[in-house]
Amino acid sequence: MDDDQSRRLLIIGGGAAGMSAASAARRLQADKEIVVLERGPNVSFVLCGLPYFVSGIVGHLESLIVYTPEYFRMERNIDVRTGCEVKRIDTGNSTVEFVDRATREKGAVSYGKLVIAAGAQPIVPGIPGLALRGVFALRSLEGGAVMKDFIARRPVRRAAIIGAGYIGLEMAESLKTAGAEVTMIEASDSVLPGSEPEIAALIEEELRRQGVELLKQQLALSLESNAEATVERVKTDSGEVAADMVLIAAGARPDAAIARETGIDVGETGGIVTDEAMRTSIPDIYAAGDCVEARHLLTGRPIFLPLGTTANKQGRVAGENACGGRAVFPGILGSLAFRLFDLEVARTGLSHDQAQAAGFAPISAIVRFPSRSQFYPNAETLTLKLVADRRSGRLLGAQMAGNDAVAKRIDVAATALHAKMTVSDLMHLDLAYAPPLGTVWEGIQLAAQELLRHPAAGS
Amino acid sequence: MDDDQSRRLLIIGGGAAGMSAASAARRLQADKEIVVLERGPNVSFVLCGLPYFVSGIVGHLESLIVYTPEYFRMERNIDVRTGCEVKRIDTGNSTVEFVDRATREKGAVSYGKLVIAAGAQPIVPGIPGLALRGVFALRSLEGGAVMKDFIARRPVRRAAIIGAGYIGLEMAESLKTAGAEVTMIEASDSVLPGSEPEIAALIEEELRRQGVELLKQQLALSLESNAEATVERVKTDSGEVAADMVLIAAGARPDAAIARETGIDVGETGGIVTDEAMRTSIPDIYAAGDCVEARHLLTGRPIFLPLGTTANKQGRVAGENACGGRAVFPGILGSLAFRLFDLEVARTGLSHDQAQAAGFAPISAIVRFPSRSQFYPNAETLTLKLVADRRSGRLLGAQMAGNDAVAKRIDVAATALHAKMTVSDLMHLDLAYAPPLGTVWEGIQLAAQELLRHPAAGS
Repeated sequence: MDDDQSRRLLIIGGGAAGMSAASAARRLQADKEIVVLERGPNVSFVLCGLPYFVSGIVGHLESLIVYTPEYFRMERNIDVRTGCEVKRIDTGNSTVEFVDRATREKGAVSYGKLVIAAGAQPIVPGIPGLALRGVFALRSLEGGAVMKDFIARRPVRRAAIIGAGYIGLEMAESLKTAGAEVTMIEASDSVLPGSEPEIAALIEEELRRQGVELLKQQLALSLESNAEATVERVKTDSGEVAADMVLIAAGARPDAAIARETGIDVGETGGIVTDEAMRTSIPDIYAAGDCVEARHLLTGRPIFLPLGTTANKQGRVAGENACGGRAVFPGILGSLAFRLFDLEVARTGLSHDQAQAAGFAPISAIVRFPSRSQFYPNAETLTLKLVADRRSGRLLGAQMAGNDAVAKRIDVAATALHAKMTVSDLMHLDLAYAPPLGTVWEGIQLAAQELLRHPAAGS
Repeated sequence: MDDDQSRRLLIIGGGAAGMSAASAARRLQADKEIVVLERGPNVSFVLCGLPYFVSGIVGHLESLIVYTPEYFRMERNIDVRTGCEVKRIDTGNSTVEFVDRATREKGAVSYGKLVIAAGAQPIVPGIPGLALRGVFALRSLEGGAVMKDFIARRPVRRAAIIGAGYIGLEMAESLKTAGAEVTMIEASDSVLPGSEPEIAALIEEELRRQGVELLKQQLALSLESNAEATVERVKTDSGEVAADMVLIAAGARPDAAIARETGIDVGETGGIVTDEAMRTSIPDIYAAGDCVEARHLLTGRPIFLPLGTTANKQGRVAGENACGGRAVFPGILGSLAFRLFDLEVARTGLSHDQAQAAGFAPISAIVRFPSRSQFYPNAETLTLKLVADRRSGRLLGAQMAGNDAVAKRIDVAATALHAKMTVSDLMHLDLAYAPPLGTVWEGIQLAAQELLRHPAAGS
């Protein structure tokens, strides 16, 4: 192994995880050779901003690019190569083979350490009509640009969204804001998988209030076209939905193909398996971001939940450790937030049902409380469901909806979950209060009071 | 000791702490005899709402009364006696002697357990002119009503506030909103004692922006009147301030007089000493709220900080334990929040200087970050200073200012302080993120990253 090879850090994927790894490595080692191979034309992109680009709230696609390839090359001395599709990892020779998508030329780069940050792919149901014009599945900036262009060129009067997870919900707001009538088609009996029923009910109420149609327990069977091969309607198992445009928002799966072909362990979730140091099962190869599965801090079980927050943390840990660091990524709580028109929704930890399934003995309380002192004008009503373990008294999860700092309030619960706090501990929290900013007892404490009335939860 | 006496719970003071104690006791024991002696005409009042009553944001003083004496009598079977001024606690006979302020009649109530929740009194500097018309010190609902009436009856064009702590600052907004030109007179060289200089600077900037004059390092020497014995100006050690009205906001001291006379231990802060169960040094006597000193959870030292959040928690603990419960109140972090016009300010834990004084080896980082994704419109810039201990890596404190969910963001730091988290732990927090609601790395994590670059803080 020559010197160059042993020193070079190679990263597959220039998204949040890959560029976090590259930047973390550069911070630790000023002279390390760092190469990033990215399939698309951009790196360091913020896919979670796409709904706001489609709606027009964000005017320029470039706003969703934190740093350009040029910036990384010039300012951080990171050799970013866009348009490079990785074909094979040769672990025997510590080499990655790729094809330049523009020239079709093949190339190879050797590595001392490798970080796989290949991201995720949209889950697309196997139904006819996916190739029609006007059918989209958002998983890249370029895809967002094409969709925005499609909307700009013709009046999209009716949009259908297949899937009512949080991205489907964000896109419902986005497309409605862009001027379309929106119908959501959801196969299950609830929006947002993993939601407490009381929170799901508030989401559905907000959809109704904003004039978004929600069809539950309907399965999309095919996408049908007009003469111009542009989508015209969605056929479902119980009818038809007229649509000038269809967005597939049925979730994502880890892009672990290259890892699998390399013989790297892939878990039951489909994500690459790593340890806390983000090491894969093959020496010198790390993985980070949407292509890996994480450990759930409460259940200890693997979970696949592709989020930018996790990708940034994991990338950083992988990049540091690839440079001899000793960083760890302990796992996730499933924390999540999104906005749906005038409703903020956020969660952390386990729902009542998830806690039950994980072997806990869950008890839960739901409270509705004002976002500021009751005497202070314009308080919003917030709804919080708190779940705890009856046996240990430990907090297990929180879900909240409303229109005032809901995500930040959930962060308090997330921090308490990290600290393995009990419901009693929550009552002792010295939280900051002023009449225009909150209530003397915060919602989490009001819910904790409720839970403490439950026999045996006060331990 | 007869049965009635051994069972009766007597509470001195009907504010937040006293009524929390009464209500907690009632929840535990449905048939307990509970008597509350309150000096004023109301109980269960929210003094922290007074600035918003004076400004007119809250229209009716009654809005600041959570429950009336009648409510407590009828709905909770709590014998609330208003207008009763306690004169003596006879510990030998377990009896409290009082005077009815209306009739001047004396009375006495025996007790099985006693909770002292006598509240606090404003600190008033010993200067001439305090008795003039137009001079106020807010520490009761009735005082607020008199002040509001004073403002309503004449045009108050110029108001002076002596003291630039958080109540002085809230009142600056209040009086400005009510139409007055406001001058604040502060003896020290900074607003808001205990503030980090970077946060104090933002407060001063907001005062300037809103046209409130701030005089620092000026000592009020006397209040001067016109012919009608109404205040006309404040003389200071370096000049004069014209003022139709003067508010003394120089802080508060615990109302521990009755405790001291009873021989109950009073600490160096002037507050009643209690243990974690809110027991005083004399058997069967508890104390709670603004009349007691609390333990600071980080320094272990006594601290006097009269806040509604603490009063509610302590009252609840005292009430439960007076009924045989085993609740504890471990202490406080000094968490605090207030709003000053368009600026939210919040803090928890120790400032850099306080940490130094307490024997820690503080390091600190200051970060300015957007309240939402940079690409999302209308992000506010928030400023956060984070303090940690160099030796242990432990978080010690956080102060923040800005205009988006600052108090709730500080609550995350407060929760981390309760859990004794290190700066490294903060980096692992799985916080909820969406572009309109926050940033991928929350401010506390950005500041933690800064601190981790400091040698030896990464432990």
